[in-house]
Order: sequence, then structure tokens, then C-alpha cells
Amino acid sequence: MHERNLILSRRDLEFLLHDWLRVEELTALPRFAEHSRETFDAVLELAADLATERFAPHNKRNDAEEPRFEEGRVVLHDEVAPALRAAAEAGLLSATMDESAGGLQLPHVVGTAVQAWFHAANVGTWAYAMLTVANANLLLAHAAPELVERYVPDMLAGRVHGTMCLSEPQAGSSLADITTRAEPRSDGTHVLTGTKMWISGGDHELGENIVHLVLAKVPGGPPGVKGISLFLVPKVLPDGTRNPVVLTGINHKMGWRGTVNTVLSFEGATGWLVGAEGRGLAAMFHMMNEARVGVGAGAAALAYTGYLKSLDYAKSRPQGRPAGAKNPSTPMVPIIEHADVRRMLLAQKAYAEGALALVLYCGMLVDTGERELLEVLTPIAKSWPSQWGLEANALAIQVHGGYGYTREYDVEQHYRDNRLNPIHEGTHGIQGADLLGRKVRTPGFEQLCARIADTAARAGSKELQQALDRLVEVTEILHAHPDAEERLANASVYLEAAGHIVVAWLWVDQALATGDRQDALARGKRAAAQYFLRFELPKVGPQLELLATLDRTTLDTEPTWL
Amino acid sequence: MHERNLILSRRDLEFLLHDWLRVEELTALPRFAEHSRETFDAVLELAADLATERFAPHNKRNDAEEPRFEEGRVVLHDEVAPALRAAAEAGLLSATMDESAGGLQLPHVVGTAVQAWFHAANVGTWAYAMLTVANANLLLAHAAPELVERYVPDMLAGRVHGTMCLSEPQAGSSLADITTRAEPRSDGTHVLTGTKMWISGGDHELGENIVHLVLAKVPGGPPGVKGISLFLVPKVLPDGTRNPVVLTGINHKMGWRGTVNTVLSFEGATGWLVGAEGRGLAAMFHMMNEARVGVGAGAAALAYTGYLKSLDYAKSRPQGRPAGAKNPSTPMVPIIEHADVRRMLLAQKAYAEGALALVLYCGMLVDTGERELLEVLTPIAKSWPSQWGLEANALAIQVHGGYGYTREYDVEQHYRDNRLNPIHEGTHGIQGADLLGRKVRTPGFEQLCARIADTAARAGSKELQQALDRLVEVTEILHAHPDAEERLANASVYLEAAGHIVVAWLWVDQALATGDRQDALARGKRAAAQYFLRFELPKVGPQLELLATLDRTTLDTEPTWL
Repeated sequence: MHERNLILSRRDLEFLLHDWLRVEELTALPRFAEHSRETFDAVLELAADLATERFAPHNKRNDAEEPRFEEGRVVLHDEVAPALRAAAEAGLLSATMDESAGGLQLPHVVGTAVQAWFHAANVGTWAYAMLTVANANLLLAHAAPELVERYVPDMLAGRVHGTMCLSEPQAGSSLADITTRAEPRSDGTHVLTGTKMWISGGDHELGENIVHLVLAKVPGGPPGVKGISLFLVPKVLPDGTRNPVVLTGINHKMGWRGTVNTVLSFEGATGWLVGAEGRGLAAMFHMMNEARVGVGAGAAALAYTGYLKSLDYAKSRPQGRPAGAKNPSTPMVPIIEHADVRRMLLAQKAYAEGALALVLYCGMLVDTGERELLEVLTPIAKSWPSQWGLEANALAIQVHGGYGYTREYDVEQHYRDNRLNPIHEGTHGIQGADLLGRKVRTPGFEQLCARIADTAARAGSKELQQALDRLVEVTEILHAHPDAEERLANASVYLEAAGHIVVAWLWVDQALATGDRQDALARGKRAAAQYFLRFELPKVGPQLELLATLDRTTLDTEPTWL
Repeated sequence: MHERNLILSRRDLEFLLHDWLRVEELTALPRFAEHSRETFDAVLELAADLATERFAPHNKRNDAEEPRFEEGRVVLHDEVAPALRAAAEAGLLSATMDESAGGLQLPHVVGTAVQAWFHAANVGTWAYAMLTVANANLLLAHAAPELVERYVPDMLAGRVHGTMCLSEPQAGSSLADITTRAEPRSDGTHVLTGTKMWISGGDHELGENIVHLVLAKVPGGPPGVKGISLFLVPKVLPDGTRNPVVLTGINHKMGWRGTVNTVLSFEGATGWLVGAEGRGLAAMFHMMNEARVGVGAGAAALAYTGYLKSLDYAKSRPQGRPAGAKNPSTPMVPIIEHADVRRMLLAQKAYAEGALALVLYCGMLVDTGERELLEVLTPIAKSWPSQWGLEANALAIQVHGGYGYTREYDVEQHYRDNRLNPIHEGTHGIQGADLLGRKVRTPGFEQLCARIADTAARAGSKELQQALDRLVEVTEILHAHPDAEERLANASVYLEAAGHIVVAWLWVDQALATGDRQDALARGKRAAAQYFLRFELPKVGPQLELLATLDRTTLDTEPTWL
């Protein structure tokens, strides 16, 4: 059981799902009427078992034996495929999907917790499943029934995998500038030509086929994003021949090495339109929003396992004596006795459990259908765990001292793996522009503020209420400002401030949920909430003051001065 | 020249050394009377050439082909030894040493700049030289003349290398608890037995011999640090036979892979006492203080090269359009046009140039003999560049987007290399305890405050003066508090706040030194100073308020609650 207890905390998941979010109440909704606390717990138990027994054991091997590019194909080591097959056979790929599509129709909040076990155990292997599930969800929502029938059941059974092909070498975040062409054929298919970059899982032999979802432009369409359509391009065509999707290279990453990242060349490949022509980006964003919360969930899970491992280390490693104890003949104490080590553990707890609470809350909003609130939280759910989960992993290394810097321990890999999260699925800067440029102008922002105010009032938390009030004031100042460039110049700072206030809210809310319980878990939750309010939330003050001045420092700095 | 311009900025070094620090004035001191601006610049030019031509080319190879443990010895690739030999032959290992010891007797401030070129070009290879120089400096200060004569000239010529053997598997930062024994022999030598951990450069075949400086306890001595003595233990004995210093393993690190890190077993090895018995730690701290500023210098240099590489990338990579430009038919702009990218570049500039200014200032204090001020700045010079240099490298990756996360580019390696700096030579937590527990009680703290106040007055900077005033008030509150555990509980927060105020001071001072110049460098300095005062210095406010409350959150949190 020790291994499993270093991946995630079952005890905390129970608190978050049952005591805090009361997920059992979801069974009052028709969609979840067949479920109960028992079915939720059973699937989580199954996920914990599989994550511990089939995924965690080869996490380090994924890092040490990264995928190889050999004779035009990708070679993975031999533990990846069986693990993925086991998860598919257990029905976990389709956990949240409709029963009609062969799914378990579980709430997304439970599905997020299921995924967290795999993310924390082995993010490199799990990514193949995650991409396939996101791909299948998009097909279910947008593709013609015959395409769904042809591919989705095999995807959910783990026989076919999926990718998302968006970026190109000259167009990373700037999708309007993609140049991959899709020329219509008379039989209704299209011929795709172009190069796609950063394609995770773009080639491998884990299953029988790979379904690429590819953004491309039909010649003659409008410029920019309105000319972008979405195509399904299989690696193997229905007649069994190879579609000309050529693997031209693989990227060698700092971390997250288990998931092969490829450059693919579409050299006259056959594709099928998914959804309407010119609506490709809208369909892809359906998947992207889910993927963004998924990135946050992965970052939270990596933060969490790093926290548990450094906590375990801190309890067992003797070193030094308490401040003030001068006698060198007294025995050394475990390093958790040092205040500074406890600070690093409390910070990790605040980041990891706060991030997990945030992404579970987002899962809950999918289940309750609160889309507007979900949309305003999405850039925060993507970026906050990515930023602070990484910081948690940095602290996990620091708690281990020199050992933490070696590959003999786990935490340095978690740190390297987690460094991807502020980049992919829309960088930090893009999330900031999304939040400040679009989302805070939607009704979801008011709903969010009302929820935070409600928690602050119930807890009597003046700190939280004051931070919220200032956020609202500053948001209004920014809204009232006519110049878009000045309004958005410090959007990343806004994103960080809003994120800290949101997570402070979730911490106060978790502390409220402990009521007058005096057990260790409840006291730990209250200690972490106190840490967050005293050490973290005050960071927001200077950020909001800076934003209120519409500071032009970054705009006024000429490139030649740098 | 392009390559060299991505290592360090010669233009900025000239500003820092000549326009800001006015190092030429050091030639008025008798020690540097033989020198001139021309000799300073010539040695810097030589360092830049060697760093560019001999060190930078194999930096990535150091990472990809890390040292191997084969048949009891360490195997390095073939570019390391020639690079080190070239630096030694150019006299750069002994640049700051006395002429009587064969050195160039250059000021330390110039020596720090010389080292920065090598740190930035290839920290893994340069570390062998750095350790050897620190080792030789310690021998010159503390060893008997015959030991100096036997080893130091060969060390400075690059034929013999050095190590520092402090930590043991059971005692990392807690040196009082080391157990390596040194039994006296009748001939005046000692027999050393024990295991040393984290020994950089502990074995290799770069030269003819390795000089280990080993902390050990003579049986019967007092417990704790007072029982620690220092010994010189050569790999090869004067009679040419192998001393029983056995390589028992190497550590596989996240970064900084070019420098082999070893576990050494002293199995009855012969050692010579350096300095007096029981005074080992004092002698080692002579070296350690120098090493701590050296760590900061390395962190600053890695931050700097990452900044220059991401700046170069940002100027050449087209992507997207400015905020507000909606027409997708207009050409893409270089990403440096985006305010958020400029924010990340300004932040890097503020961290990298601020950190370099800090370590150069410390070098200057060695030359002017201002030891008290140097001592209070040492924990900050070690930790601030380590913390913010790493953050600079994280931003360098972020500017590169997905490319930055791949090993095809340089910046991810700089980030991994730099992650060691907050750990070695005393962790962040240890620097905090040193600053708040000892250094702020010394006269150096008042000298520091006076310098900051002087700059704030000359610049008319209210922000800096107010931050300083609050630092002084909070320091007094902490001093007046009787409970050591409570006083020091948040020493790391104090370290970070003091560090930011010190670097804000150096930025205001740099901006002052630009006078009314209107060239790009001067305007860039003023923009970075403005960035630091507006985006960075305000972070100190909440930190100082937390410290003023003597917050007990970390102390009151029971280990079982975590």
C-alpha cells in the first residue's frame, strides 16, 4: 500500500469528492441516476489499483528509455501498450461517456479524479489514453455517424489511438496562419498536404490504427480562422493501405518523455471532413477546453505525487537539530521538524490540493451544466496548476536536498514533466489574454464573484472578501479603458492574481467543509487554508495595484533596448 | 561573433565594470597598481574567446554524454580536458591570485566577470576549474608551505585538480554529524576512513592527480563542529602509488551533467592536516564563502545566456499579430512585438543583469576589503541569483514556446543546470538562517542599509527608501523577539524580501549611472530598473508584513496533519 499512498491520497480524494463537493448529490440528476457513492468509489479504487500496478512501475523507464525514431517509425518500450490495454479493458477510457456510446456515464468530476491517478502515476503513458479519449469525444460531438461507428468503439477499446494536429512549424499558437491544404475530391473526401508540428502520439504501434484530427484550409476559403476546417485522417485507410502520413522527425523533450512528440508530413493523405467546412476551429475548441482543464488536472496530479514523496522523505530523513538546540550530542531529528521544511511542505500541500480542488470543481460544473462559470474558470484551471504545480515540484526537490536533484529519486522527473504544462494547449500568455480579453466580460465572471463572496461571507473571511472587491474594481478599471493594447498588456499578471483569489476561495471553502472536525485531515486542511491566506493571497495586492495603473513599462520598452 | 553574443553581453559587462563600478579606480590600490583598464579588458577578451571557442561548443555534449562509471573509474568525453588545459595555460585559473603564487593579481571583480564567461558557456566543464581554484586558494591561505609547493603550482597549471569533501550520506547540510575518522600516525600524517557524498569531480583522468580536501574527526576530539579538522588527501601519493580513495558510485543528476558527482570511500587513505586540528570548518568556510558567491555568479551567468538566447529567438520568430490587429491577412510580427513576450524578456533582463551586478559588487568588496558588508551580502549573493536566475531560465523556455522544451534548443539545459544552484553550497533555507540568524546582527547590515539609503536619496526613489525603512523596522521587531524558533521560522521569507530590496537598490544605482545618456543600453537599463521597481519590488510588501506578525503557521502545523 505504500506505493499507492505516494501517488495520490485516497483520504483526501474522499474528502474532496464527498465531504466538500458532495458528489453523491449528482445521482439526483437523471444522467447519473444509476450511480451511487459505491459505484463512484469502486471505479476510483480500480483506477488506483491499475495506476499503482500497471502505470507507476514504468514511469521512470519512460524517462530513461525515451521513444526512438527508427526506420521511419516510432519504437516504444514494451510496458506501455499492456498498461493502456488494461485501462481500456477496465472501461476507464469511456468512464464519463454516454452509456449509448459504451461508456459508464460517470460524472466528469469522478472522471477527473480517475484520471488524476494515472496522471500522477505516469503522465507519459497516460497521455496516449487522454488524447484518444479527447479525440473520441470530439468525434461523438461533431463527426458523421458513419465515422463515429468506424472509429470510436475501437478507440474506447484501446485498439485505435488518436491525435490532435493543430500546430505547424511556422504557426504554433497562431492557428490563423496554418497552411496545410485540404483539396476536395469528387467522392467527398479531401486530399491533405502540409506539415504538422508538436504532434503527441503522432506515430507508434500501440494499436491497429491512429486517428489524426487535422486542422487544414480548403483552398478558396476565407483567410484566418474562418477558413479552417477539421479532418479525420487515419494512419491506415479503411481498405487496409497506408495513408501517406509520414513521420519526419521526433522532438527530444526535457521531460514528459514517455509520450512521443512528432513532426508529421501529410503528403496527399486522404481525410474526411468532421463538422461543417470553416467550422474546424470551433469543433477543435470543444476538445481544447476539455484538454485545458485536463492539463491543469495533470499538473495538479504531478504536484500531488511530488508532495507525497517529499512528505515521506521529510518524515524519514534525519538531519540537523531544531533552531535553538545547540548540543551536538543530541540525536538528529527528521527534517520535517524544521520550520522551513514544514513551510515547503505546507506550500506544496496548498498548491497541490488547491489545484486538485480547482480541477475537480471544474469537472463538477460540467456535470451540473454550469457552462458559463466553467468557461471563465477554464484559463485559470489550465494555468494556475501549471504554474504552482511546477513550483510545488521545485519545492519537492528542495525538501530532498541533493538527492532530489538526482534521477535516483522521482521528484526531478515530476518537475521536468510538469514544465510542459505552462506551454502546451495554449501558453500562460494565451490563457491570460483569454481570461482578461474575453472571459471576464461574460456572465460567468459575475457568477464566479458571487460564489467567492458567498464563501467569504459564510467563513467571515475579510481577507478573501477584500481581495475579491479589489479584483472587481480593477476589472472595471480595465474594462473602462478604451485602448486594447494597454488593457491587455499585463494580462498574465491579471491571470495570476485572479488565479490566486480563486484558489484562496476554494481553500476557505474546503476549510468550511471541515466544520468542527478535529481529526488530522481536517486540521491539515485548516492549516493549509491558513497558510494560503497568510503566505499566498497577499501576493495578489501588488499585482492588482500594478494592473490598476495600466502600467505601460512593457509596451514602452523598445526591442532594441533589450 | 553571433555565438559569443549569445553567451554574455560584452557591452553590458563594460557598462557594469567601467561605467557603474568604475573598476579602473582599483588601480589606485597598491595591489592592482600594475593593472589598467587595458589589462582588465584584455583578460576579459581572452576569456570571451576561450569560452566561445573551447567551452561553449561541447556544452550540449556534456549533457548528452554524461560521465560514465566504468571499472572503478570515471570516463569523460574528449573535449573536456583540452578546454580546461587551454584555460589554465592562458593563466585564467590563477587570475586573481598573488603574483608571488604565479597569479595575475587581477581584482576579484574582474575575476568574477572572467568566470561568468565560462559559467555561461559551459558550467559543467568550468566547474572542474572552479573547484581547483577554490581548493588552491584554501591551501594558499591555510596549508603548510611544503603542501602548497607540492600541489598548488600544478593545480594552477591545470595538471592537478581539486575537490571539496564535506557531506556524507547521513550528513548533508549537518556537518556537525560527519563520521569520517582521521587517526594520527607517528609520521605526522593521518589515516582517513569514511564515506563522502556529493563530491563533484571526485574522480576523472583530466590530469595527473586529484587533491581532495576532506573534513574529518580526529578520535577523542570534542563533539560537533569543534571536533572537525581538514585534511589534504591526494588521489596519488607522493611516491606515485594510489591512495585508497575508492570511487564507489556516481550520481545521475537532472542537469549540470558535465561535472561528475561521486561517492568516495576513504579506506585508510593517507592525509595531511591543513591548518590547526579542530579548525577544519573555519578553514572550509573560507572557501565556502567564496564558493557561495561563485554559485550566485554561475546562476547569474546561466540566467544571462538564457536571456540572450530567448531575446535572439524573440526577435527572429514571427508569430501572431499585435493585440487589436484583427486582419489575418497582415503579415505576422516577430514575437518580441507582443507585450507579454516583452514582459518575459524584461523580467529576464532584470533578473540576469541584476544578479550579475550583485555578484560583481561582491567581487568589488573583496578588492576594497569591505569584509563586513561582503559577509552580509554573501547569503543573498548565493540565493537571489539561484532563485531568480532559475525563474529567468523558465521564462527563456516560455519565450521559445514548445521549442524551448526540447533538447534541440539550449535553454532547457540551462534551466536544468541552474536548478542545482538553490541546493548546493548551503540550501536556500540555510542561507536564510545565516542571514537572519547571524548576518543582520553584524555591522555589515548597517553598512548595507546606509548604502541603499544613499542610492535611494540620490535617485529620489521613495519606493526604495520605503522598502528599506520597512525592512529595518521588521528586522528590529524580529531582533527584539526572544524566541529563536519563532524569530527564525520564516527566515526564508526574510531572505527573499531582503534579496529583492538589495537588487532593487542595485538597479536604481545602475539607472543612476546611465545619467542622461540616451543610447539603447542606457534606456534599456532604465526600463529594467523601472520594471524592477514596479513589478518586483512591491512583492516585498506582503513578505515583510507576514514577518512582522511573527507568523506561527509553519511551527503550529503538526507533521501528522500533512
